[in-house]
Amino acid sequence: MATIEFFWEPGSPYTYLAATQIGRLARDTGSELQWKPFLLGKVFQERKMTLPAAIPAKAQYMFKDLARWAQLYALPLTMPKVFPVNSMLANRAAVAATLQGQGEAAALAILGAYWGRGEDISQPEVMLQALKGAGLDAEALLEATQTDPVKDQLRANTEEAVQRGVFGAPTMFYDGAMFWGNDRLDLMKAVIEGRIKA
Amino acid sequence: MATIEFFWEPGSPYTYLAATQIGRLARDTGSELQWKPFLLGKVFQERKMTLPAAIPAKAQYMFKDLARWAQLYALPLTMPKVFPVNSMLANRAAVAATLQGQGEAAALAILGAYWGRGEDISQPEVMLQALKGAGLDAEALLEATQTDPVKDQLRANTEEAVQRGVFGAPTMFYDGAMFWGNDRLDLMKAVIEGRIKA
Repeated sequence: MATIEFFWEPGSPYTYLAATQIGRLARDTGSELQWKPFLLGKVFQERKMTLPAAIPAKAQYMFKDLARWAQLYALPLTMPKVFPVNSMLANRAAVAATLQGQGEAAALAILGAYWGRGEDISQPEVMLQALKGAGLDAEALLEATQTDPVKDQLRANTEEAVQRGVFGAPTMFYDGAMFWGNDRLDLMKAVIEGRIKA
Repeated sequence: MATIEFFWEPGSPYTYLAATQIGRLARDTGSELQWKPFLLGKVFQERKMTLPAAIPAKAQYMFKDLARWAQLYALPLTMPKVFPVNSMLANRAAVAATLQGQGEAAALAILGAYWGRGEDISQPEVMLQALKGAGLDAEALLEATQTDPVKDQLRANTEEAVQRGVFGAPTMFYDGAMFWGNDRLDLMKAVIEGRIKA
């Protein structure tokens, strides 16, 4: 069984879109799915990149584009009151959940809070509610965010992203081949199904 | 009949991909199609943007991504020997052809020469061959590139792109709504067909 690795960042709106689709894509194609939360901000720093939203014309377009995708996927979408957001806590909570095999539930809970409802996920109480709402052990996960194994794993994921050429989120790897963005899910599916080469 | 405006630039690889699809999309949806060549470099200057390929990790990924789309569309793809290219001549020839109602033929000829075969379209003899190969009056078009109406129209298209919020290529407008990129053709189609709102 081939593996899809899903590198994702809570602060990324296209990650929100893709996260709601990738589980089904993996099931439909019989692929194993690995959730890999990482710090996109660190990757941008490393590559001397700026946020796409730093260009005003692009930022203006982006929210319209997101709204179209949200309609297509039938998802709620709210521009967060805090953007960009400090995603350290959310990212660590995601890592903690992933270490317990709850990567998908945590991702959908966190991204839903931030991009679906526009909440400030840098706040512990917001994170508590979001994780609880998904049936996760929210208190334990937030406690785990202060532990070395979780901090180390987030650092390792981020370093791995840099090493493997990631420059945005979400980034998927299928059988080693990299795909960037919600808008490449179909292309990745075409590769998985053997319709095109990677 | 609603109109699709297709803002395109010879030096843009995703424009090559989209240009081969947009004609059919327009026919399938019963839309009028307007070809609008413009100088993407000027728009980048205006918005203080850099080429996407300026980030090494992105450039490396981009060519793989292009190769996947080319497979999907069954198109030839060759990394041009000269990139980025001075697209002034090609852009003016495209404008000249468009003024004579030959916008699609010229676009496919120019983009095919540059991205399909990797030729240096800044050279008049390359442009001559490419336009001739498409059955166009190549000599007349190249002569027209030196005339004021053509120069002015290219300037006007570029200025229009800036004014309307364009920041990349290709950019499509359907009934005033903007869509950026080959990877937004399906989303635009969904809007044209009324499946989602713009």
